[in-house]
Amino acid sequence: MEVGEGVSAATPTEEMNGAGNLMDFLDEPFPDVGTYEDFHTIDWLREKSRDTDRHRKITSKSKESMWELIKSLLDAWSGWVVMLLIGLLSGTLAGVIDLAVDWMTDLKEGVCLSAFWYSHEQCCWTSNETTFDDRDKCPQWQKWAELMTGHAEGAGAYVLNYFLYVLWALLFSFLAVSLVRVFAPYACGSGIPEIKTILSGFIIRGYLGKWTLLIKTVTLVLAVSSGLSLGKEGPLVHVACCCGNLFCSLFSKYSKNEGKRREVLSAAAAAGVSVAFGAPIGGVLFSLEEVSYYFPLKTLWRSFFAALVAAFTLRSINPFGNSRLVLFYVEYHTPWYMAELVPFILLGVFGGLWGTLFIRANIAWCRRRKTTQLGKYPVLEVIAVTGITAVLAYPNPYTRRSTSELISELFNDCGALESSQLCDYINNPNMSRPVDDIPDRPAGPGVYNALWQLALALIFKIVITIFTFGMKIPSGLFIPSMAVGAIAGRIVGIAVEQMAYHHHDWIIFKNWCRPGADCVTPGLYAMVGAAACLGGVTRMTVSLVVIMFELTGGLEYIVPLMAAAVTSKWVADAFGKEGIYESHIQLNGYPYLDVRDEFTHRTLATDVMRPRRNDPPLAVLTQDSTTVEDVETLIKDTDYNGFPVVVSRESERLIGFVQRRDLTLAIKNARQKQDGVVSSSVVYFTEDAPQLLASNPQPLKLRRILNLSPFTVTDHTPMETVVDIFRKLGLRQCLVTRSGRLLGIITKKDVLRHMAQMMNQDPESIMFN
Amino acid sequence: MEVGEGVSAATPTEEMNGAGNLMDFLDEPFPDVGTYEDFHTIDWLREKSRDTDRHRKITSKSKESMWELIKSLLDAWSGWVVMLLIGLLSGTLAGVIDLAVDWMTDLKEGVCLSAFWYSHEQCCWTSNETTFDDRDKCPQWQKWAELMTGHAEGAGAYVLNYFLYVLWALLFSFLAVSLVRVFAPYACGSGIPEIKTILSGFIIRGYLGKWTLLIKTVTLVLAVSSGLSLGKEGPLVHVACCCGNLFCSLFSKYSKNEGKRREVLSAAAAAGVSVAFGAPIGGVLFSLEEVSYYFPLKTLWRSFFAALVAAFTLRSINPFGNSRLVLFYVEYHTPWYMAELVPFILLGVFGGLWGTLFIRANIAWCRRRKTTQLGKYPVLEVIAVTGITAVLAYPNPYTRRSTSELISELFNDCGALESSQLCDYINNPNMSRPVDDIPDRPAGPGVYNALWQLALALIFKIVITIFTFGMKIPSGLFIPSMAVGAIAGRIVGIAVEQMAYHHHDWIIFKNWCRPGADCVTPGLYAMVGAAACLGGVTRMTVSLVVIMFELTGGLEYIVPLMAAAVTSKWVADAFGKEGIYESHIQLNGYPYLDVRDEFTHRTLATDVMRPRRNDPPLAVLTQDSTTVEDVETLIKDTDYNGFPVVVSRESERLIGFVQRRDLTLAIKNARQKQDGVVSSSVVYFTEDAPQLLASNPQPLKLRRILNLSPFTVTDHTPMETVVDIFRKLGLRQCLVTRSGRLLGIITKKDVLRHMAQMMNQDPESIMFN
Repeated sequence: MEVGEGVSAATPTEEMNGAGNLMDFLDEPFPDVGTYEDFHTIDWLREKSRDTDRHRKITSKSKESMWELIKSLLDAWSGWVVMLLIGLLSGTLAGVIDLAVDWMTDLKEGVCLSAFWYSHEQCCWTSNETTFDDRDKCPQWQKWAELMTGHAEGAGAYVLNYFLYVLWALLFSFLAVSLVRVFAPYACGSGIPEIKTILSGFIIRGYLGKWTLLIKTVTLVLAVSSGLSLGKEGPLVHVACCCGNLFCSLFSKYSKNEGKRREVLSAAAAAGVSVAFGAPIGGVLFSLEEVSYYFPLKTLWRSFFAALVAAFTLRSINPFGNSRLVLFYVEYHTPWYMAELVPFILLGVFGGLWGTLFIRANIAWCRRRKTTQLGKYPVLEVIAVTGITAVLAYPNPYTRRSTSELISELFNDCGALESSQLCDYINNPNMSRPVDDIPDRPAGPGVYNALWQLALALIFKIVITIFTFGMKIPSGLFIPSMAVGAIAGRIVGIAVEQMAYHHHDWIIFKNWCRPGADCVTPGLYAMVGAAACLGGVTRMTVSLVVIMFELTGGLEYIVPLMAAAVTSKWVADAFGKEGIYESHIQLNGYPYLDVRDEFTHRTLATDVMRPRRNDPPLAVLTQDSTTVEDVETLIKDTDYNGFPVVVSRESERLIGFVQRRDLTLAIKNARQKQDGVVSSSVVYFTEDAPQLLASNPQPLKLRRILNLSPFTVTDHTPMETVVDIFRKLGLRQCLVTRSGRLLGIITKKDVLRHMAQMMNQDPESIMFN
Repeated sequence: MEVGEGVSAATPTEEMNGAGNLMDFLDEPFPDVGTYEDFHTIDWLREKSRDTDRHRKITSKSKESMWELIKSLLDAWSGWVVMLLIGLLSGTLAGVIDLAVDWMTDLKEGVCLSAFWYSHEQCCWTSNETTFDDRDKCPQWQKWAELMTGHAEGAGAYVLNYFLYVLWALLFSFLAVSLVRVFAPYACGSGIPEIKTILSGFIIRGYLGKWTLLIKTVTLVLAVSSGLSLGKEGPLVHVACCCGNLFCSLFSKYSKNEGKRREVLSAAAAAGVSVAFGAPIGGVLFSLEEVSYYFPLKTLWRSFFAALVAAFTLRSINPFGNSRLVLFYVEYHTPWYMAELVPFILLGVFGGLWGTLFIRANIAWCRRRKTTQLGKYPVLEVIAVTGITAVLAYPNPYTRRSTSELISELFNDCGALESSQLCDYINNPNMSRPVDDIPDRPAGPGVYNALWQLALALIFKIVITIFTFGMKIPSGLFIPSMAVGAIAGRIVGIAVEQMAYHHHDWIIFKNWCRPGADCVTPGLYAMVGAAACLGGVTRMTVSLVVIMFELTGGLEYIVPLMAAAVTSKWVADAFGKEGIYESHIQLNGYPYLDVRDEFTHRTLATDVMRPRRNDPPLAVLTQDSTTVEDVETLIKDTDYNGFPVVVSRESERLIGFVQRRDLTLAIKNARQKQDGVVSSSVVYFTEDAPQLLASNPQPLKLRRILNLSPFTVTDHTPMETVVDIFRKLGLRQCLVTRSGRLLGIITKKDVLRHMAQMMNQDPESIMFN
């Protein structure tokens, strides 16, 4: 402190040379300057500027020699190479996961004698003894009871099969949770909330690492096969992002720049959804709408490429054995009618309500897990939930099988060759019609039976999904949400169909439902319901409709889907703006600034900035009157991420901002390597050294770590504008000035805290956005 | 000036009450404050903040009474209502245009006797005497020569028909250009460059007015019917945007806020493309990728709604008579093979070269039109070009008909029932195969004949389109570009097909082209060529592929389309980054800051800001020492759009920014209404009046028009960051400071000028982006 005296009045150097200094700074004289610590936010502007610099260097070098020119071309193409690799690997992984899940799901019930690595379907397809009517039965495929006791039927066989089903499920889920616990704790959950946070500029080291990739792929197979009420779609996005991160490390362009890396990850997310549903365009829109934060047009184009490559890789692996790209391929034969919009909109309302219920209940349960003893026994929790799921699921044929098979059956239209219970209609022998055009008929006992089972399955799925999502295993909620909606939709669809058949003289049916005509498609209702429920939970809109459009392949059904999706979003939004991913982000306290929340309060920067009225003054450095010791004390006493640098404490005129991390590294470096730097050395940020007495030790120049263009706003700036600036420019902090004097600082966390505060103060304002 | 003395040292009031002042400002005390002049740029941040304020007012009022609550709900829904109306009107207009164009195009050749308002196709479809083989001929439809002389064939009839064809074409184009000239000069061109500029925040009054809407719709029909080489797709976007603007005026939420209005216009552009091609998803992506500037997620969702409503409205009008939504519906029966990627990529190269050639030649011609005598005779120019087009087009059957029909035929696969000359293959009588599966066969004389005619048509289209685009009539270039590509593609397709047939033992064909197999689809080549050429001209990427995907409805052909689109973009980009729309924006000198250009130069804000080194000092106002007369002199002597306000000329510490327009209005208002305000009155921007001598006249308080939160950057900020800020926040100007002192100002025009300057200095850097 004593050293600072006598120099504080030194005039600021007025001849700063900006460009030269910038170069100094970007030359990165000591390692790690310009990198970030774990759980910190990146500075988008700085990353962008670093990339431009790198680019500039390559461009100017490329004129020097042929080899440099080739290198620069390779650099320009590396983005596309990364996309190609991401597409290939994520497509392959998705194919492998699909095959493994198929086999292991069937393993719970039985085994293929001719080749144990065949799933039930593959086993019977390769068998010669299979007839078309009895597609599901073949001698090669044996249930466990049959294999062990020789009896295929009877109470004993049923109990044995039941027992083994539960046992396998417990084994799979135990393996999954143990692997996650031991090897990669980040592999649990769907991963989408964290990926959203990472893409918005947060650092979570290891979240997208190789280890996470490996463990998540393996445990995803185990978790899905265990029959838990979870899907593989969300985790596939995480897997694809891990692939993206893996390939980033091949090119320094991406591995050394957190901003560029996030562009690749956005594209990888698109590839993930693309393989999850077989919907490349939907995947790109999902990445744009739901996951990404910074999505320039260049990324749009590359995402599309990655999504297509991934989809085609998956198709060449052909895990569904039908050379179809999509998860649920459906084709309907009849159009929909205006009057049907009423049940579709009702399904939308149901979807919105389900979304609200699910989010509230799930968040409440996850909060309880976080705050009580429950969270300490994750393995036990998984085992218990798996046990309950398996025990309750086995007796009901609609819950026993895998959820995606269930959805597939619910979406299906009843053709003439359908053997499902849901298609057990009473045939009118007098009617002979072409195979594909089946008129409405009265429901047979099978349908009524199925309705009961579906209703039970619906309740079961609703309850168990709430407890499943958020456990320490990979778990997506696309599929369970869709299942809930598909079940509800199919029930409504059958009800409308039977009403139309039995009351075709009612006014509403009169115009479009003559007897013998095919007028209601229950499968379409299932699809609409699935869209509504998925929309209620995730609040996806365009991407949801486009994914569904890619599944059906016809514009025909976009209007019903859209009506349901819009209704569901409106209903759910009326109870709270946040989707499940945003809720989980909030629950985990990640610093995520949602692009969609509109900030509409009349507060000013001065209300949010620190220091507050009664706080101690802002911790600042002066440009040429602080000693090394002062700086070290400041670093030790505070935990701020950076410090503004002012001309002097009296004038408070801002000249720049210095990062805590850079400051620590620079001083450590100087103490080690630079002679004469002691605790009483003056630290200066000006171009020229301050005029000091001869008795003073050598001063330390730190201009190269000073950011000379810190972002400033005036204290009168409306917070709404400040929020906009933080969002659009991806800032970490912003300094507040009034007529050139430094008043305070606003960090991203201050903004988030203020937004949360204002939101709670005035919850009604949410409804009118 | 004399009055200012003695007060310049007054301390600034430190107790400013920001919120109160903000309210003062937003209460808009005198009319027109906060509006914009024609050909000026809007301030996005201010517009957004005004909307939030309006929103806040409504929300707080809504708690007062039931009526206010209903009003607030109506306000929240008005966005959707506007979208619905835009969809309905633009769908209807597109349908009407399609029908009118069909009829008038055929009118050039003949007339329907049974009902003169029928087009050729409608005429013959309603006729009973039409056989399937002779679909195009029916007694009701008579060519002009037949009607007038009774002879349908022969040289005389040909000459008469030829003459009347040219006459009709001249009449239509003369009408079109006269209407544009007299009633709505803004109705000419495609409109997309101007819409891009408007959406980026520029004001062009009347460009989207009712009058433009009416005239553009009528003249579009005339221009397309005249047979000129132009399309209706671009102008349809303009028409849809006019509809959007029209419906904005119904709601003060949109009509009074230039920012909100632009959200609606973005959605309207999506609806325009949606009806142009029958591709709603493609339309939304086109709006996102190509046209829009500020595209929040809310707009994405609403655009999608508008695009869907428009598409369905168009479908209910059913102008193509096939209940298909899309302009060119195609279905191919055979897959494509890897080896075919080579010709597809070659087509991409062709598309890129065509794009470059077209843009350069068209811009050169348009520049000549602007700078020479040519521009003074727009009517004559249109007449001349129409005359040449009609005279050259008539003899060739591929250019005589409308361009969209031509494209449709070129895209088509040759089925067994096709009567086109292009499908004149030599049949092998030994082969009997199902109807849909037609193997490769040798080409007949018709095909060779068609090839020659297509080659001539290609040259004709290439040349004439360059001269057509930019004339004073509505003219789109999607269709002509696609036609060029489709012709080239079909020629290449037939060549590959014949090569495969005659040389099926070559190594490249061996694996996939056995004799008698159907292995090459020339129609697919036409489609790939069309995509490549359109991509080369417009540089669309994702939206292009998605539009094409919606036309074919199968993911199958996305890879060829994408390969061609990517190649075409790369090739074209190698010769210059700008697409045709950006080139026209530049030609017209609109202040458009492209989101896609990356600014990679190492300049700083200090290099760009004004005043420059030898300029006179920056024109500023002081907070409490300028007189009314000084201000008026400043306004008269300069043409700046606004002035920074500083504490005093000595300290140069910035306190705010005041708009020229607001200043003029405020002083005029004060002089009229406020007693005691004379030329020597002091103008003050502080909260409290400065302490003046009693002899001084009453001071004038102008704090309410002062923007207390002007945007500032430091002089060391890299220009790259400044460009980013201008782009993302939509600024008009930005002040430059150094350690709290005002140094200069950077306006949007300064940024644009600097970017253009740097780009010309270093053209090589373009290639490596």
